[in-house]
Amino acid sequence: MGCIVEADDGDDVVMEPPSNFSMVDEGIYRSSCPRPANFSFIETLNLRSIIYLCPEPYPEENMEFIRSHNITLFQFGIEGKTEPSVSTLKDAIRGALKILIDVRNHPVLIHCKRGKHRTGSLVGCLRKLQNWCLSSVYEEYQHFAGIKSRPTDMRFIETFDVVCLRQCLHSLIFQYQGYGSKKRRLLYKEENVQKSRIASV
Amino acid sequence: MGCIVEADDGDDVVMEPPSNFSMVDEGIYRSSCPRPANFSFIETLNLRSIIYLCPEPYPEENMEFIRSHNITLFQFGIEGKTEPSVSTLKDAIRGALKILIDVRNHPVLIHCKRGKHRTGSLVGCLRKLQNWCLSSVYEEYQHFAGIKSRPTDMRFIETFDVVCLRQCLHSLIFQYQGYGSKKRRLLYKEENVQKSRIASV
Repeated sequence: MGCIVEADDGDDVVMEPPSNFSMVDEGIYRSSCPRPANFSFIETLNLRSIIYLCPEPYPEENMEFIRSHNITLFQFGIEGKTEPSVSTLKDAIRGALKILIDVRNHPVLIHCKRGKHRTGSLVGCLRKLQNWCLSSVYEEYQHFAGIKSRPTDMRFIETFDVVCLRQCLHSLIFQYQGYGSKKRRLLYKEENVQKSRIASV
Repeated sequence: MGCIVEADDGDDVVMEPPSNFSMVDEGIYRSSCPRPANFSFIETLNLRSIIYLCPEPYPEENMEFIRSHNITLFQFGIEGKTEPSVSTLKDAIRGALKILIDVRNHPVLIHCKRGKHRTGSLVGCLRKLQNWCLSSVYEEYQHFAGIKSRPTDMRFIETFDVVCLRQCLHSLIFQYQGYGSKKRRLLYKEENVQKSRIASV
């Protein structure tokens, strides 16, 4: 492999990121399902949570890893082989998005099995929430899905209603940070939570 | 395009990232050469600097943009059409890496023309510096270069000597942050600069 690089501290850890790994935004990562060989790399991300998009139980080795690293698992089961109904998919993606943009869960890793379709759909919807134009959202989706790109995923992303979700989130506990600089990052604001708690009593 | 999403502040800015845009690591981005249509998106990154890897003069519109946003341009001219000699390429990549990992220059955007070969080679060498195994480095390179992947770039990345560069940087002004957590991020440390300044007198 030719991939042994000597570390300065005498600790020769070669980092093997999971395939389809990438940084999505500050505190947000995406990948395929990490295997044990990837754990030493995953450790460097100092994750607080994982969003897992498959309906299958979380693999035992991964479960041990997250337990020992105090990582919270959020599971939103989306079928990978048979096509889920649009409304099931919508509910799962909406739920996952709420966890994803809550900075209290960061750093967070999103993964399904191969990091292509389910992960790509969630990231696509996040990009819409960040006001990316659709052609850029598609380009990113296709980067990761490659020749396996699915028109159904792309249609789902296109029709996913972020305006409604944004208003909903906005009125609850989130607020855009840095309006002035046009930064679209979502930031948790304590006072708003208080308000919504009072409102929901 | 179906990409108009109403922003909450009544400011309907649709973000159009440059093609091949991605976040490489905290404070480090990559893309193709930004066009004016991409400027409102680029603004959201709050860049401090740009690493430009082409020998051609920086496009006039881009120059105006970076001037008005107080962004520093670091140019390392690498030929795109004819193959540069390995030693020329090495010098350029080494120089660019030194700028790239200096957090005083972050947030930084790396770009060439299409964000495939020159940008991909620089990011590939950065990944080696971060101890990524070669197969993961190649996977990332190929994500962006696609069918245009060049074996010469991949050979260059494989043979690029990061051990020497790491020691050189390490002895100057940089130091790995978070050894304990195995985090490979490079951090600028003021006291080391002082030492190196004294040492070089």
